[in-house]
Amino acid sequence: MTAFRLFVLSCLATTVCFAVPLPSQAEEPEVSDDTSTCLSCHETVHPGIVEDWKQSRHAKTTVAEALKVEKTSRKVSSTDIPENLRNVPIGCAECHMVRGDAHKDSFEHNGYTIHIAVSPDDCAVCHSEEATQYKDNLMSHAYGNMADNALYKTLMDSMNGTLVAAHGGELSLKAPNLKTENESCYSCHGTKLAVTSTTTRDTDFGEMEFPVIQGWPNVGVGRVNLDGSLGSCSACHSRHAFSMATARKPYTCKQCHDGPDVPAYKVYGVSRHGKIFSSSGSSWNYNAVPWTVGTDFTTPTCAACHVSLLSMPDGTVLTERTHAMSPRLPWRIFGLPYAHPQPKSPDTSIIRNANDVPFPVTLTGEPASSFLIDTAEQAARQKEMTAVCKGCHDTSWINGFWPRFDNTIATTNAATKTATDLLMMAWNNNLAAEPTDMKTGTGLFDNYVENVWSTIWLIHSNKIRFASAMSFGGDYGVFAGGRYELNMRLREMSDWIERGMAQEKK
Amino acid sequence: MTAFRLFVLSCLATTVCFAVPLPSQAEEPEVSDDTSTCLSCHETVHPGIVEDWKQSRHAKTTVAEALKVEKTSRKVSSTDIPENLRNVPIGCAECHMVRGDAHKDSFEHNGYTIHIAVSPDDCAVCHSEEATQYKDNLMSHAYGNMADNALYKTLMDSMNGTLVAAHGGELSLKAPNLKTENESCYSCHGTKLAVTSTTTRDTDFGEMEFPVIQGWPNVGVGRVNLDGSLGSCSACHSRHAFSMATARKPYTCKQCHDGPDVPAYKVYGVSRHGKIFSSSGSSWNYNAVPWTVGTDFTTPTCAACHVSLLSMPDGTVLTERTHAMSPRLPWRIFGLPYAHPQPKSPDTSIIRNANDVPFPVTLTGEPASSFLIDTAEQAARQKEMTAVCKGCHDTSWINGFWPRFDNTIATTNAATKTATDLLMMAWNNNLAAEPTDMKTGTGLFDNYVENVWSTIWLIHSNKIRFASAMSFGGDYGVFAGGRYELNMRLREMSDWIERGMAQEKK
Amino acid sequence: MTAFRLFVLSCLATTVCFAVPLPSQAEEPEVSDDTSTCLSCHETVHPGIVEDWKQSRHAKTTVAEALKVEKTSRKVSSTDIPENLRNVPIGCAECHMVRGDAHKDSFEHNGYTIHIAVSPDDCAVCHSEEATQYKDNLMSHAYGNMADNALYKTLMDSMNGTLVAAHGGELSLKAPNLKTENESCYSCHGTKLAVTSTTTRDTDFGEMEFPVIQGWPNVGVGRVNLDGSLGSCSACHSRHAFSMATARKPYTCKQCHDGPDVPAYKVYGVSRHGKIFSSSGSSWNYNAVPWTVGTDFTTPTCAACHVSLLSMPDGTVLTERTHAMSPRLPWRIFGLPYAHPQPKSPDTSIIRNANDVPFPVTLTGEPASSFLIDTAEQAARQKEMTAVCKGCHDTSWINGFWPRFDNTIATTNAATKTATDLLMMAWNNNLAAEPTDMKTGTGLFDNYVENVWSTIWLIHSNKIRFASAMSFGGDYGVFAGGRYELNMRLREMSDWIERGMAQEKK
Repeated sequence: MTAFRLFVLSCLATTVCFAVPLPSQAEEPEVSDDTSTCLSCHETVHPGIVEDWKQSRHAKTTVAEALKVEKTSRKVSSTDIPENLRNVPIGCAECHMVRGDAHKDSFEHNGYTIHIAVSPDDCAVCHSEEATQYKDNLMSHAYGNMADNALYKTLMDSMNGTLVAAHGGELSLKAPNLKTENESCYSCHGTKLAVTSTTTRDTDFGEMEFPVIQGWPNVGVGRVNLDGSLGSCSACHSRHAFSMATARKPYTCKQCHDGPDVPAYKVYGVSRHGKIFSSSGSSWNYNAVPWTVGTDFTTPTCAACHVSLLSMPDGTVLTERTHAMSPRLPWRIFGLPYAHPQPKSPDTSIIRNANDVPFPVTLTGEPASSFLIDTAEQAARQKEMTAVCKGCHDTSWINGFWPRFDNTIATTNAATKTATDLLMMAWNNNLAAEPTDMKTGTGLFDNYVENVWSTIWLIHSNKIRFASAMSFGGDYGVFAGGRYELNMRLREMSDWIERGMAQEKK
Repeated sequence: MTAFRLFVLSCLATTVCFAVPLPSQAEEPEVSDDTSTCLSCHETVHPGIVEDWKQSRHAKTTVAEALKVEKTSRKVSSTDIPENLRNVPIGCAECHMVRGDAHKDSFEHNGYTIHIAVSPDDCAVCHSEEATQYKDNLMSHAYGNMADNALYKTLMDSMNGTLVAAHGGELSLKAPNLKTENESCYSCHGTKLAVTSTTTRDTDFGEMEFPVIQGWPNVGVGRVNLDGSLGSCSACHSRHAFSMATARKPYTCKQCHDGPDVPAYKVYGVSRHGKIFSSSGSSWNYNAVPWTVGTDFTTPTCAACHVSLLSMPDGTVLTERTHAMSPRLPWRIFGLPYAHPQPKSPDTSIIRNANDVPFPVTLTGEPASSFLIDTAEQAARQKEMTAVCKGCHDTSWINGFWPRFDNTIATTNAATKTATDLLMMAWNNNLAAEPTDMKTGTGLFDNYVENVWSTIWLIHSNKIRFASAMSFGGDYGVFAGGRYELNMRLREMSDWIERGMAQEKK
Repeated sequence: MTAFRLFVLSCLATTVCFAVPLPSQAEEPEVSDDTSTCLSCHETVHPGIVEDWKQSRHAKTTVAEALKVEKTSRKVSSTDIPENLRNVPIGCAECHMVRGDAHKDSFEHNGYTIHIAVSPDDCAVCHSEEATQYKDNLMSHAYGNMADNALYKTLMDSMNGTLVAAHGGELSLKAPNLKTENESCYSCHGTKLAVTSTTTRDTDFGEMEFPVIQGWPNVGVGRVNLDGSLGSCSACHSRHAFSMATARKPYTCKQCHDGPDVPAYKVYGVSRHGKIFSSSGSSWNYNAVPWTVGTDFTTPTCAACHVSLLSMPDGTVLTERTHAMSPRLPWRIFGLPYAHPQPKSPDTSIIRNANDVPFPVTLTGEPASSFLIDTAEQAARQKEMTAVCKGCHDTSWINGFWPRFDNTIATTNAATKTATDLLMMAWNNNLAAEPTDMKTGTGLFDNYVENVWSTIWLIHSNKIRFASAMSFGGDYGVFAGGRYELNMRLREMSDWIERGMAQEKK
């Protein structure tokens, strides 16, 4: 054998070594006839997503193969999967034609009935456990939790609406249109899809008719789908690779959890966990199921703490997979306006506090306890999260963490209370117009001092709690919109009131 | 063959496999005698840039080789390249000695005439098409578009200048010096280079004389060079590797497009595109020309949408390369003070609106249409950008996107209008001094309420539009300086006016 | 030899090629009996850190082996290392049992005396030079420099404390508790550890007693340890890998240098250096000692400029390693309230300015020169930093940089002076209560206008200087909290004073 032949073979071998992600690739399965027909056109009209799919696990294996994997490592959780889906790769047709009757956007397309917006209930055909868990996730109700809560809708309008100036400098609000809402809050929360009409388009393959879907495109976590289901699996498992590895990386969560109200990604980035991920994460194994602490990864990503099935190197399960996320969350640190125990139901639009207001806590800080989990459930959830911590930390460490977190919940809630006391003073002294209806939040978010108030709890108190929860988020609890700015904003409110009262007196 | 010999050969083969970026490496060409002389000293005085260059394509091939590549994949676009540059790698001498007569910083250096600041016209010797395209890029005029616009210069001075407090708390502005300007706005926009003197330095190789260049160092996109050309190719193609791969990664654009006025990188980071780049981008091929959707990369970077020659996997061209960028841009979303159709000429200093003011739109929102592209041209450019979208998205998706974007341009312009209405009220009620000369912006940026006004359009309206344009930028359109803060700032202006008017009355 | 056998062997060879980080792996040394006992339990109770350690250099070699490395490349700097540590990997017992008598948290644990918090003095057993250098680092005194400075403690309290509203809108401050402080400022600065009690826990291995350590967990740079030493090596060399590669990446510094007061990481991210790191850094060699410019890396990370031993490709040393960092720093750009020459001693709590106030500069800008380095020392340090720059930049470039930086120190100090002039006007006109005691800062940080003042120097002036120092930080010197916002804040102060004075007059 010459050196050259050795070189060639070795290159080949190397390539093969590095490119074999799946055992079945050697004999890649053939797609269904339906998918084959889809591909024959769509491969040329938008090749990007087709190539993406080709590299996916969906394209490279079959349900039948996937079901052979032992339970703990299995990715397909349904057992009653229709025969026609079992022996082909999951391609275009398998998702866009499944459950056709359920979808209001199903339409005739070249002899097939297909729907555009694939829903969690479609995914549930193979991934039923995950879909069921997700129904218990606050996020699946993210559209209605906002749109169906009159108070939050008023808050949304106050920011999405267009202000118009009148004589004397006063402002009036023109309600936002749906396009703005769909691009603003609903971009992450999810839009409400609706087929409004059909349209005829002149395509590369002749004239064709398509449904027009209001609210499309969107991949929000609480999207209201055309089959009535809630959410979008592709919010995290990005189309059309649907990669678990992608979902396990923090960039996925960053899309919606980077803003100043929920700065989870930013806090992660300055945390010890984030530092190690950034430094070493490129060599980790993001495809292993279960995900093994220490060998697959050496510091948690978002998914590790909040979603994934984790195991020890010896195979012992640290914590079970949960697409509900709530099983590991004792507190809802996103205060509205105060941090409070997690809601019992993922549908928070039903919550009414002691003043019959749809805030989970009263303005003076009393939680709507009948809608929230009790202390026993909080303790159970804290224990579940602690199980994750124990993968890398000893008990001294963990016991140092929780009391600080509890303390921060208390002190930031105290700051929100002070802000609210100041706001009430402003109302009582006629420095700002009092809300005309607290149940709908009418008049609660429409002048400057009220906006400073909402900034204190929505931005600063929340930010400080995220920095605390993620042990620890550096300046996000201090100078980066944290304690420094929170107290400065309180002093601004105080100054504004004192000047206003002095002016009133003259 | 023993296993050990196989091991060694295999290691070698592997190394070769992974390290062969260029076909011609096997017979690496010899540098010119001139470059060889340069290297003999400079390799020891600042090895970093020499090593960087050694790993570059410039060092590893010759123009003659590069010209053999078929047209679509060719990186050298000039045809009349001087003979002396053709058969050597492009080294120190080839760039720092070319077109010597044209450069005011040319100086005698060890028997050679070299110039320090290499310019786009130097690069154009081999890359003429790209250089010509760039002359049509707004960025090439980034220095003059600011410095030669009296209004913008006043805005610059208002932030770069030093404020001094007088009795009664009023402030006066000391104009900024050139050092500040060169480090502030001109850092990205580009400085104006000028040889001010020569200096003698005691070097490792004896006493030598060098030109002193005002404005140096700088790699701003609109640098005014010593040969009169505009720009700096190394703004994106970083010295001395001049890598296309680097220019195609979003970190390049981040340098100047990360701030709150043009937060393109931040928006990209929370967009779906950015999420996929962050998760999977390390395995993409950034060196391929043309750049093939789906196989080379699965989601666009900045360059993919705005610059690169893109093709489909079957070789069909999706869109041609453009260093002008404007061919794919219907709107200028960077509002001054309103978003408006792209200017016709890259030199915007010539624009005058209906009030003869060098803003492209009047304060009340009327565009200076004769200087801006018309709706037909906007439609053509939108179609060109849509061609890129179509690489991965179907028409339903794309048709959902554009109307939202148009709506956001309208609503953010409406917000700017409200801010301007409020400002005019402040002027009319003597709460703030009216500008003394709108044509130069004198008095337009020098008190607090005017700064709140400029923040609304310069920061918040712009940010919301960037979040919209990049489909979608999460909280940058909402809480991260987006709609929430925009409306809060309007309420601050309103509150300030109401208090001021109440005080006037007493 | 069949193709298949070749394939297998080649795969094997490839794997071996890529997985050999250390020469000694072939014959991995056996851990000590003590460490073996530790591992027998701890491997199962928190495997994450054990796996992390297993991949570390500590686990894969011995001190004896490490001492054989030639001086310049050697990582162990002590020469008098105890015999029992020499011939085993550095495992659990080697660090958690060393110097047991010195540690107040030493406790009996399964027949061993171990301590929880490993300190710099423990690390100094093998790494004495680095530990000694670090004692001269401002950071090692980060706890006391804040806690023992009455003025800074008042500033801390003003942000960490809980504000309570009283009648009339005025606020009173409830001092922060230790939990808040430990999670806020001391999270980065370091906590003061103290054993407060012992606790009995029911573990997987039966009931055990453990010390309860106040201030734990913490990895702050100035942690006051239970052996009296200052700092935490794991602040940068993250447990339990203690990787030099991690410490050399900028993510390490980001943890504490990302906030708006010290935005070094953010500035780096938009600098040319950061752009190249982000684009190409994944292929660099972060483990080489010395670290060679051009071949190991092509643009500096934080460590390259501030800490590492750097050499030229020919082996010439560019600059020596310094864990003190100060040898390369002429200025302390973190203004308090003005930028000033670096302090002579790392203990800054001893500084008193001309007004006997523990600020290193008076409110009117006069430096406390006797505590600060003189201009000769500044020049020497500038020269040392310049040596790093010269690795990649020529003298023209460097000579263009320093005068801009000096100018920025001057102009931002001038802005701080203007802010201070305005504040004094507010005090003199009874618009805000004057501090009752400048020596303790009592009354200096407790109302809105004072907070605007502190924001100007603490956030904006500092941010602009960081952007300047790192050549250049794009919008961090302009719109991202830079010059634009600084001048806007000054105008806010001015406006507030003018309105207040007008109100007083009525």
